[in-house]
Amino acid sequence: MSEELKQKILSNVKYDLQEIEQALTENLKPYLDLVSEIAHHILFSGGKRLRPLLMVLAAKLCGYNGNNAPKYATIFEYLHAATLLHDDLVDDAAMRRGKPVANSVWDNSTAVLVGDFLLARSLSIASETGRTRIIKVIAEITENMSQGEIQQLMRKGALDLGEEEYMQVIRRKTAVLFQGACRMSAILCDMPQTKEKALADYGLNLGLAFQMADDLLDYTVDSAVLGKLVGADLREGKLTLPVICTLGRAGNKDRRQMIEIIKNKDFSVDQFENLIEMLHKYGGIGYTKQCAREHIQRAKQALSVFEDSAPKEILVDIADYALARKM
Amino acid sequence: MSEELKQKILSNVKYDLQEIEQALTENLKPYLDLVSEIAHHILFSGGKRLRPLLMVLAAKLCGYNGNNAPKYATIFEYLHAATLLHDDLVDDAAMRRGKPVANSVWDNSTAVLVGDFLLARSLSIASETGRTRIIKVIAEITENMSQGEIQQLMRKGALDLGEEEYMQVIRRKTAVLFQGACRMSAILCDMPQTKEKALADYGLNLGLAFQMADDLLDYTVDSAVLGKLVGADLREGKLTLPVICTLGRAGNKDRRQMIEIIKNKDFSVDQFENLIEMLHKYGGIGYTKQCAREHIQRAKQALSVFEDSAPKEILVDIADYALARKM
Repeated sequence: MSEELKQKILSNVKYDLQEIEQALTENLKPYLDLVSEIAHHILFSGGKRLRPLLMVLAAKLCGYNGNNAPKYATIFEYLHAATLLHDDLVDDAAMRRGKPVANSVWDNSTAVLVGDFLLARSLSIASETGRTRIIKVIAEITENMSQGEIQQLMRKGALDLGEEEYMQVIRRKTAVLFQGACRMSAILCDMPQTKEKALADYGLNLGLAFQMADDLLDYTVDSAVLGKLVGADLREGKLTLPVICTLGRAGNKDRRQMIEIIKNKDFSVDQFENLIEMLHKYGGIGYTKQCAREHIQRAKQALSVFEDSAPKEILVDIADYALARKM
Repeated sequence: MSEELKQKILSNVKYDLQEIEQALTENLKPYLDLVSEIAHHILFSGGKRLRPLLMVLAAKLCGYNGNNAPKYATIFEYLHAATLLHDDLVDDAAMRRGKPVANSVWDNSTAVLVGDFLLARSLSIASETGRTRIIKVIAEITENMSQGEIQQLMRKGALDLGEEEYMQVIRRKTAVLFQGACRMSAILCDMPQTKEKALADYGLNLGLAFQMADDLLDYTVDSAVLGKLVGADLREGKLTLPVICTLGRAGNKDRRQMIEIIKNKDFSVDQFENLIEMLHKYGGIGYTKQCAREHIQRAKQALSVFEDSAPKEILVDIADYALARKM
């Protein structure tokens, strides 16, 4: 079912994705070789182009008739890539999408500077729109993303992290970018306030659900499929909703055992499987799925102010797929 | 003489500096405690506020009569602080202005993320101007600065680095920010093209001279005054104009000796003094001073399209002081 939906989406956006790929390369051409090379390493390692695709589809939904959608869409992939470059340093991750992270192939410094460059590139492109409201959106995305990451870093390993704070972190570090990609198109097309808000709501809720689904993967997919070490979030002290929910519900004994595993970052596979059992036993997995489902529902609901159309259907499909995806 | 000029400038800009300090604090208040704390560490450690000051003075020169100059001026201090945070990581420096660098007090990750945050903050403030040309200038500054740093990193220790490439690097990593600070005011005040260009030229040439003077300090001031290890640039493989010029002029034997010192990053104080002797002998120091002097001349010359006024006099004094300063 999920594979079928994926194929349907991919065949519907094939041409858009080609245009996005082309624009991603085009925008980097005039720059220093090393910059392009590293930017390529992170940009062309199998990313799904979800963020730029959202922008392009939202633009179609708003009746955009210019030629610049793919170019403007790259803003969101560059912003995404920039944060990946900086986050891999932050997370001290060794692998991303099955490839060594940039800061182990090159060095920390280069990864940081190329991240800065991609950030700057995305702003330059945003400034080409000539619209200050769009630039405000991009600036706010960047502010939120860095704050979200800092907040996550500050609260690393904090056992008292609650659902509310978790939601704030994933909103900032993930959902605001999805929201911005959709909102930008509405601004670009001078949509009325209601439609701009509708697209922003779609993006925000999709982004929240997407991150929840991503956080679930750490506890539901084995490392070979995931392309990184099992239990990576937990090893980094990153408490996500399945764990937060379970910690809140578990009995004293189970809770103590969970905390022991969480605090010991070198936990064994057995210990990790034990923990996963508890996430099921106390419904942490189920609760997270339910939350994600509700946000997807809200995302789709938000689109109801738009008449039915091909791009609207794809946006709905993407929302459904965000829940169903295995990766 | 230089101390006298400094005091004259400081007494003339006392009120402006107070307003800038206030705005720098004000703009960070609403944000996460840790962000503000780290931002404070880098922002309030004795910086000269030269960049925001240039913006404020240029605005006065252009007859700006709004209330936002100090706020807009913070853009340039935040951008500067953001690059310091990322550069300290890049340079692996231990001390900056006599204090431990942020990434040794906190960690690399935090320093990177707070740098990102300050970058984003400066863009948000720029977007408040509602002028896309200003945002274009800011985006281009950021692009140039990251490219300049990457270029410097790529060419670390390269003995074939020529004067032209050196000029390109210092233009990008330093002078473009000075230029942007001055240009922004001209755009803000809807100055005619000639005056905008004049202010941009003033900033660019001042920035180039400023960096040359800064690069000279490594070979003319002892480490106690400088607040960092003697020969720091060379230890990092950073070849600057005094060395580049001397390498081009030195006889074979001296050149070989210089290269030996440059390649051995753990050179002794004696070796370093030996190198400094050659910088004097072949005129590398003198040539760099001469270049800096010429750029200061051009900077002052650029201002001639403006009638005489108090802010113009201060801008001229700042140009003179950039040459004369000991620090």
